[in-house]
Amino acid sequence: MKSKRVTFADIAAYTNFSKTTISRYFNNPDSLTLENQQKIADALTALNYKENKVGRILASGKTEFVGIIIPNLYMHYYSEMLNQILATYETYGYKFLVFAGNEKPDVERRYIEELLAYNIEGLITLSPTIPSKDLAQYNVPIVAVEREDQYICSVSTDNYLGGIQAASLLQKSGCQILIHVNARVPKTTPASGRIQGFVDICEEYHLPHELILTDLGNTFRENREKISEILKCLEQKYPEEKKGIFMSNDTHANVLLNILFRTYGKLPDTYRIVGFDNSPISEEAVIPISTVGQQIPVIAGEAMKLLSSLMEERKKRQPAPLKEPIHKVVTPILLRRATTD
Amino acid sequence: MKSKRVTFADIAAYTNFSKTTISRYFNNPDSLTLENQQKIADALTALNYKENKVGRILASGKTEFVGIIIPNLYMHYYSEMLNQILATYETYGYKFLVFAGNEKPDVERRYIEELLAYNIEGLITLSPTIPSKDLAQYNVPIVAVEREDQYICSVSTDNYLGGIQAASLLQKSGCQILIHVNARVPKTTPASGRIQGFVDICEEYHLPHELILTDLGNTFRENREKISEILKCLEQKYPEEKKGIFMSNDTHANVLLNILFRTYGKLPDTYRIVGFDNSPISEEAVIPISTVGQQIPVIAGEAMKLLSSLMEERKKRQPAPLKEPIHKVVTPILLRRATTD
Repeated sequence: MKSKRVTFADIAAYTNFSKTTISRYFNNPDSLTLENQQKIADALTALNYKENKVGRILASGKTEFVGIIIPNLYMHYYSEMLNQILATYETYGYKFLVFAGNEKPDVERRYIEELLAYNIEGLITLSPTIPSKDLAQYNVPIVAVEREDQYICSVSTDNYLGGIQAASLLQKSGCQILIHVNARVPKTTPASGRIQGFVDICEEYHLPHELILTDLGNTFRENREKISEILKCLEQKYPEEKKGIFMSNDTHANVLLNILFRTYGKLPDTYRIVGFDNSPISEEAVIPISTVGQQIPVIAGEAMKLLSSLMEERKKRQPAPLKEPIHKVVTPILLRRATTD
Repeated sequence: MKSKRVTFADIAAYTNFSKTTISRYFNNPDSLTLENQQKIADALTALNYKENKVGRILASGKTEFVGIIIPNLYMHYYSEMLNQILATYETYGYKFLVFAGNEKPDVERRYIEELLAYNIEGLITLSPTIPSKDLAQYNVPIVAVEREDQYICSVSTDNYLGGIQAASLLQKSGCQILIHVNARVPKTTPASGRIQGFVDICEEYHLPHELILTDLGNTFRENREKISEILKCLEQKYPEEKKGIFMSNDTHANVLLNILFRTYGKLPDTYRIVGFDNSPISEEAVIPISTVGQQIPVIAGEAMKLLSSLMEERKKRQPAPLKEPIHKVVTPILLRRATTD
């Protein structure tokens, strides 16, 4: 069952070179003549030699492993972001160790420490559970995506602009009262920009508005119950007004849209909806949902580019320390679809 | 920026033991007295020594890495299966290297060969692109999930039973013509069982039925176009009949349901729908979709249990070769929801 691995001794015997020469071929090939390099290369093919990268890592320190920490795969945004990051394998060659945190900071810390013991070269984290101050102390290149990032490099969407875009679209759709539903997110997270942008534009243009900041739960059923309750309150409070609702993500916007469709068989004229993310569900919904589009492929690409440069710097003989973390901001793109027509 | 790694020499200097003794502590601790083990353990804490697992792997051959090959993250079924497999980290401790194949067999082969060079201990594959005969030759423990599995171990849903369940439910819902939409799947894949089960039960009970075997494309837009066309044909062919449509997965069932809702504002009495998988979209849909539920957490758990036993066997001094691949079958659970009421 177990096939015997070809050793340096086997290659030495086959080529009549010493084991030291074989070792030099792997670790410092330029110290051999081209002719001798070719002889050994031919021998490797003949012997069906499979490179043992673990051995090479010890010599070079390059594992080509990158860790990805996602909060969960339930939110379509995370699933799509993971998809896009994994797709960079063809470009960069990094292999990804993936972990879903599911709001367990202890397990997440243990996982990160395990990855460090395996000499991963870098880490991309979308999970909010561990403060950036703690992450910075792990002393490994890290890029945060769309989370608190005070002490580490990051790539995020311009959430403030997103909030402005959403409110403006609802206002243009003729809504008389603008509502934003979000969790009580800390000021330090990018998502809090959505709330600020929404509030600032409403105040500047004197648009009637209301903020509903509450936890909608972590399962589809909890989401549906909480959003149904919110809808009941809004119906009572604003029975006649045209209500423009900006949901904090497309998953929740879809839940809201479906509740309305089940009740009315359509999106009633008294409701307009905007989501956030442009995750796949916004297109797969019963009618396509208008959304503040995060450029997920761009964010994934920028995150890998930034991480890659940090990792390359680290490999230099004298790495230049970063003066302060780099924060890249990606512009959101407003997508007008059927829920704001 | 780069923190100096604590070496065996540092530990030796701190404890006044030789480097050989330190090495023995890591590779054969029982050869030291308990007292000396404790002295070294204390020194590691004092020096803030971080274990370098790459070094240990070389000694033990155990990387604790498992590769996962998924076809894509677009299909909700794959996303949820990945979620459940990743969640086994807490139980088994294996770290997962994840790759999304996206129907590129060459890239997939290169990826697998890279993982083998890194001494991964095992592989779970949901991707259909590489034949099991080729995979078996990689000589690493592999478990296939819901794909062709002639030469390798596998865990699959009882698709034949699933086809029977779907047809029976549509018949009980008073449908006059039963339709099954699926791709032209090879006979060797588990999914072909859905078609056979559907056809067999229809023939046995003389239920009018039609098979529509066609490729629905790989993007949401392609799906929607193709399913719209199919729907147009069905409307023309069976204008008055109550049509029971069994879609090959929930993602496609959701597309069909949404097209009907956009046209009629509800699921018309002349249509009943059953999906397959019980992936999250079946509950998140505009009305909950009846589905042949794959027990995704059970399948993920069984796959890891089976892979884990294969990997443990491999570590024995004299591993017992498997006489033939083990194929586990998990029973599907029919979920009656709003689309068959």
